[in-house]
Amino acid sequence: MTIIEHAEEIEHLSSGKTRVLVPTMGALHHGHERLIRHGRSLAGKAGQLIVSIFVNPTQFGPGEDFETYPRTPAEDRSLCIAAGTDILFQPTVEEMYSAEQDLGTNADTKLTGTLCGPDRPGHFDGVCTVVNKLFSLIQPDIAVFGKKDYQQLAVIKQMASNLKMPVKIIGSETIREKDGLAMSSRNRYLSAQQRAQAPVLYKALKGISENNNLESAARIKAARDMIAREAPLGKISYLQIVDRETMQELMEIDRPALAATAVQFGTARLIDNIEIDPVI
Amino acid sequence: MTIIEHAEEIEHLSSGKTRVLVPTMGALHHGHERLIRHGRSLAGKAGQLIVSIFVNPTQFGPGEDFETYPRTPAEDRSLCIAAGTDILFQPTVEEMYSAEQDLGTNADTKLTGTLCGPDRPGHFDGVCTVVNKLFSLIQPDIAVFGKKDYQQLAVIKQMASNLKMPVKIIGSETIREKDGLAMSSRNRYLSAQQRAQAPVLYKALKGISENNNLESAARIKAARDMIAREAPLGKISYLQIVDRETMQELMEIDRPALAATAVQFGTARLIDNIEIDPVI
Repeated sequence: MTIIEHAEEIEHLSSGKTRVLVPTMGALHHGHERLIRHGRSLAGKAGQLIVSIFVNPTQFGPGEDFETYPRTPAEDRSLCIAAGTDILFQPTVEEMYSAEQDLGTNADTKLTGTLCGPDRPGHFDGVCTVVNKLFSLIQPDIAVFGKKDYQQLAVIKQMASNLKMPVKIIGSETIREKDGLAMSSRNRYLSAQQRAQAPVLYKALKGISENNNLESAARIKAARDMIAREAPLGKISYLQIVDRETMQELMEIDRPALAATAVQFGTARLIDNIEIDPVI
Repeated sequence: MTIIEHAEEIEHLSSGKTRVLVPTMGALHHGHERLIRHGRSLAGKAGQLIVSIFVNPTQFGPGEDFETYPRTPAEDRSLCIAAGTDILFQPTVEEMYSAEQDLGTNADTKLTGTLCGPDRPGHFDGVCTVVNKLFSLIQPDIAVFGKKDYQQLAVIKQMASNLKMPVKIIGSETIREKDGLAMSSRNRYLSAQQRAQAPVLYKALKGISENNNLESAARIKAARDMIAREAPLGKISYLQIVDRETMQELMEIDRPALAATAVQFGTARLIDNIEIDPVI
């Protein structure tokens, strides 16, 4: 595995091979490993698999956890090697944001008006800006993003389409602990008590997905009640059923839908979601 | 010359050659011709010269001249052929803005806080968004922009740098009528009387550039007085000396500077500028 830390070096990578990019913020866990292995399979033996690790300051809001976000460079490198990475791109903040005042991507569209958007103003602008930069530098043919950040995946698909970027965006399945908790670098912020309550997110979402006999509003209410009851240490930011493409709230599951939630446990903001297909 | 009207077709252009892009809004005049010939010389015989013609709706504000902007497709094609264009890319609005609600580039930085920026809110966002799309589709190695739109050139340089785009941005000299008026597709909006007064823009800017013995403020005042006197049909939007890189106002010409002006003649908003180097 080659490690590249400077933008100019990655720009001059030899091309001709299919290039697959897996962008991450590091603090890699088993969920990332599966994401990287998915990237490896998309690249094939002949292709080039690039993992980027960059904790992007512009996607963190004031009071969010940019400074304290976990950084585990040595473990990340081992995991990248084990998962078949060809190139690890680890630029510095100075390298990615060299200008005094940076121009970026404006992600203020319908897609970001729901779910995490209102809770995290500027977050998706920051995500799109850094992904735009990574795409410009690396020129991938394919980029892989986790479905745990489903809204992010939808926004990046929109960006690639709107800005005519020559890259295919692939979503990769969420990987879970045995008790259902979606793997996340932020899970390590949880106390033992919070950790014990956190699996209720997935349990509640599964309830929504399985309660075919109930109206959407009733399903949502049951899920909220379950979280309130089983996770008294958590505070629900949102719990909604949305159109899987547009991220707009759905009153009736008459098209491919997504049930999504964000719950704050102390300093940890956990998100999760589940795809729900309409019953035909 | 090949004419391409669909985004997918330009995406699959064979590569390997140096690609030079000259983006325009059509209504091509002799100034564009020189711009295209400049592009041809940068591409060389072996390279590929692409001219795009697209009247970009998102860079026009409400009440501006999007609908009435001159469109002269037949003449444009002849001029492109004469100037050595290999590929003419002429997409439709639907092709470039396919989505209901588009995500774009946010150009709200220091650079756009002066000169044309405050007069035309959203203008540079629209410019950067469409150029971003054109770059994604065409993947040019070099792109050429006219210096008449100096602030636009500076903003696009900033975008390419900030977003790490693998393209070199080249500025091309302003071409003028014999009486000094900068060539512009909008000159055809001028009445005979307005046309007779319009050369004062350049005359006033030259005055600023040549009056080395005066302070900047005095030079500006003299130029404003000259425009008021010689172009009573014009209304000055701005007339300023700015830093050529940052577009911030300069009180003293102690670095590479630009004197720039915008004057409204009826429906025609004319802009012009002149580079001024510090006297050593």
